[in-house]
Amino acid sequence: MNTNNFKKILVPIDGSKYSEKALGRACELVNMFDSKLVLIYVVEKSVPLNFLDRKAYLKMLQKFGNRILDKANLSLSKQGIPAKIILKEGNIVNEIEKIVKKEKCDLVIVGNKGLGSVTRFLLGSISNKLAQSSSCSVLIVK
Amino acid sequence: MNTNNFKKILVPIDGSKYSEKALGRACELVNMFDSKLVLIYVVEKSVPLNFLDRKAYLKMLQKFGNRILDKANLSLSKQGIPAKIILKEGNIVNEIEKIVKKEKCDLVIVGNKGLGSVTRFLLGSISNKLAQSSSCSVLIVK
Repeated sequence: MNTNNFKKILVPIDGSKYSEKALGRACELVNMFDSKLVLIYVVEKSVPLNFLDRKAYLKMLQKFGNRILDKANLSLSKQGIPAKIILKEGNIVNEIEKIVKKEKCDLVIVGNKGLGSVTRFLLGSISNKLAQSSSCSVLIVK
Repeated sequence: MNTNNFKKILVPIDGSKYSEKALGRACELVNMFDSKLVLIYVVEKSVPLNFLDRKAYLKMLQKFGNRILDKANLSLSKQGIPAKIILKEGNIVNEIEKIVKKEKCDLVIVGNKGLGSVTRFLLGSISNKLAQSSSCSVLIVK
């Protein structure tokens, strides 16, 4: 009767409690609408890093990203929810946008805070930027 | 099994195709999650109006608001979806926020454009402001 517009949901995660909440909300929608789920972690490369070994820092983020993606995937498996797992390097908002288009997602679910919280003061709020720039619907979970 | 976080959904409408789309999306969620639905139209008072009879203009907006609320309500009734209908005067974002708190809504669904489109250049994008300021989750429908 209704057109299902929640066919494919993208959740960018960053290991924060805010992205965990966003993922929880995503699971509710996935269960209700039988949506496909894509998780992404983006290693943010566009942060100026003069005070650290840049290569070592990016490697550390990569490791961290893989760890939280694995952890989230395990938790989803236990709930019987399959997910596609993606790790990218680049600008968070740009990489999310690219995946939205490539994977034909129709909803991005983000926490209100958290995503890119470390670099929030440098980059501005990621969720607001996404809400403005995203080509698909955005749910900002509070 | 899941905590239902879509208990009460607020949809601000303005007669645009964007808010119609937002309402359509809201209906999908209402049907799935058995959520309560609240519709609001806000007569925006904070627009500087030097070129028009202010009183007549506000009266016209009130009439328009009542008309589109009635129209939306009729369409919802036909789908068997009951809704609470609210018309307010004031600043759009502030009034929405007040109703979110008063009605204990846990989700606001807005179109990406449209809401306050007439006054968009004066006020900035309402949906972005809401996404930033809202005390509950916000779904921006594109």
